[in-house]
Amino acid sequence: MNTEGFLAARMARLKSSAIRELLKQSKMEGVISLAGGIPSSALFDFDGLREATQLAITEYPEHAFQYGLTEGSHTLRERIAELCEGRGVVASADDIVVTAGSQQALDLVMRAVVDPGDIFVVERPTYLAALQTLELAEAQILSVGSDSDGMIVDELAELLKTRKIKGVYVVPTFGNPSGVTLSRARREQLVQLAVKHEFLILEDDPYGELRFTDERQPTLFELSQSLFGNTENIIYTSTFSKILAPGLRLGWVIMPQWLLHNVAIIKQAADLHASALSQSVAECYLGLNRMTAQVEKIRATYKKKCAVLAQLLESELGDVLTFEYPKGGMFLWVRFREPRNCTEWMKKALEQGVVFVPGEYFFAENPDHSTFRLSFATATEEQMQEAVARLKRAL
Amino acid sequence: MNTEGFLAARMARLKSSAIRELLKQSKMEGVISLAGGIPSSALFDFDGLREATQLAITEYPEHAFQYGLTEGSHTLRERIAELCEGRGVVASADDIVVTAGSQQALDLVMRAVVDPGDIFVVERPTYLAALQTLELAEAQILSVGSDSDGMIVDELAELLKTRKIKGVYVVPTFGNPSGVTLSRARREQLVQLAVKHEFLILEDDPYGELRFTDERQPTLFELSQSLFGNTENIIYTSTFSKILAPGLRLGWVIMPQWLLHNVAIIKQAADLHASALSQSVAECYLGLNRMTAQVEKIRATYKKKCAVLAQLLESELGDVLTFEYPKGGMFLWVRFREPRNCTEWMKKALEQGVVFVPGEYFFAENPDHSTFRLSFATATEEQMQEAVARLKRAL
Repeated sequence: MNTEGFLAARMARLKSSAIRELLKQSKMEGVISLAGGIPSSALFDFDGLREATQLAITEYPEHAFQYGLTEGSHTLRERIAELCEGRGVVASADDIVVTAGSQQALDLVMRAVVDPGDIFVVERPTYLAALQTLELAEAQILSVGSDSDGMIVDELAELLKTRKIKGVYVVPTFGNPSGVTLSRARREQLVQLAVKHEFLILEDDPYGELRFTDERQPTLFELSQSLFGNTENIIYTSTFSKILAPGLRLGWVIMPQWLLHNVAIIKQAADLHASALSQSVAECYLGLNRMTAQVEKIRATYKKKCAVLAQLLESELGDVLTFEYPKGGMFLWVRFREPRNCTEWMKKALEQGVVFVPGEYFFAENPDHSTFRLSFATATEEQMQEAVARLKRAL
Repeated sequence: MNTEGFLAARMARLKSSAIRELLKQSKMEGVISLAGGIPSSALFDFDGLREATQLAITEYPEHAFQYGLTEGSHTLRERIAELCEGRGVVASADDIVVTAGSQQALDLVMRAVVDPGDIFVVERPTYLAALQTLELAEAQILSVGSDSDGMIVDELAELLKTRKIKGVYVVPTFGNPSGVTLSRARREQLVQLAVKHEFLILEDDPYGELRFTDERQPTLFELSQSLFGNTENIIYTSTFSKILAPGLRLGWVIMPQWLLHNVAIIKQAADLHASALSQSVAECYLGLNRMTAQVEKIRATYKKKCAVLAQLLESELGDVLTFEYPKGGMFLWVRFREPRNCTEWMKKALEQGVVFVPGEYFFAENPDHSTFRLSFATATEEQMQEAVARLKRAL
């Protein structure tokens, strides 16, 4: 049987497979990976997770194992609302949909708002899997550059002179892969442009809590609320993956009501609701009051790991590489001082037993081939030392 | 801000909200619901689930809480393959993707294969949320009738004379809402048509294990394998929701390789992977060897409940209602002998404190308004007695 005609046309546009195949290599014995965007399981609060799971299955077994609401457990949404209040994101349980990680939030929102050809603007570079959701929704993806203050919003303003856009996708705080944080001035400029030109802002905030300093930028959600008294065009999403446990596959999205109702309908068709067991564990965990200490621990550890990797890179490879010190998050975004194709170079690095993500995959257009992303979250200090030595040998 | 233009055009086609609002009523105090498609939590094997969860979080905590493979845990897929072998569905772990319930399998497959306007054929009536996934994918939905032998495949053959179709969605065993089972002859006819006319069969099998007799029809997957030596156009999906616990949100889909790779790419963008905690619990549960006894228990209980409800309907309302005795599953599909709009009638039933799902929602076209669906899975015998008395009063 000829099966070729069975696939939908959109499948030809999806290009995730190259990087996916590439990263399978990172599982090979002896290879040190600085590639994955995964948190360190050495930092997981296993004791707290076990206590929460015990509580969920003994005290609320029906809640954990029976069907639940599409929007998510009401108790969990209330606790998420409390958590968000600490971030300056003031919303009620009824403004929240619990999703299978923030990844699903991106996908659901794109499906609800993007018609084929609608323009969505992203940063250059941006989160790889956000590009995938935009490609699946058949958006026209445009991009604007970024620098050490994050997305260059002036470029967006220029673009808006000639184009009507549906929305902007942005990771304003400790971006993936760039590590940079959008400055206060640009945040205000962005939310003002959004109201003036009537476009959506999808604010993706997986790393906001993982800050290494006391400096805290207001979320775009918070700024829009304070500048305009509403968040009718702001969609805020975050996740338990980086602060609790990614295996739970739990995130959430805070939306205006006109959108929430539609996202819930799509979620119902997509998977009915997020794992009730995962939700029960998360809500019990939040009830244990361990989250604040847990986040502190992650912050302190990542801060130290970041410093170690940065210093190694600087001392060993500072003559050929350059990067910004991130103020939080999980990533170092590195650029060769002289042009080099990092996808090609990765093969050499792999021969030496070290792997990273070549930068080009994070660009919707005009890729900078001289860039690559390193994660400092999972490797130990010894592994980092060895990894940097191997990178050096690969040159 | 005018937010109306923000929604994608496809949202206007989705009509799930009516029934969704309607069923919220069923949560009202004192209302007996025969509406939900949910399994009885009184039958959940809580002891086994707790034992499995304990094992998962103490023996394999990293597996349960860290990121995992998009296709799903390899051990779980191996155990699912064993489970399926008992159903005559012979596949390996590499042919399986673990999904967030079979609901997600439907959605992922539709996204991978349906271009807007592609024709998908369903039974009349059919599973409501399958229609939603087809609507989201912007398929052109056509339908063929069904009778006590399931989908009338002759009608499909007739349709194929003039139309090229992408696929057929069918619940061949103990259908939802119809309760009927596709006969052996029609199964063969269907898989033969699929090969001849090169279309896909999406075989949805959530209820197959819940049989009340020893009679077992071969799956379409099995038939295709035995008749043609391959299953290149067959997609088989099933779920843990009806045999273990729906709150885990775990199902699976068995696909040919040309499709599996593409579904995995979409799943990666949709939610990365199913809850690792849920997967761990399911794989530990399967390792406990309790599933066979658990399924036996569900079977025996549903069989009895089905008989009770059927007898009550027959003795109390047999003069105005008619239905087929299902040989398994969770539903009685009931029809008024004289025409009646059951959506209208439900308001009266609700006043009496009983709720069901009006049949019209299960039709892609040409709804039979005189039908409604009753679930016998969750109500107790006393509740069924009272429910039927209330239905009678509502007449």
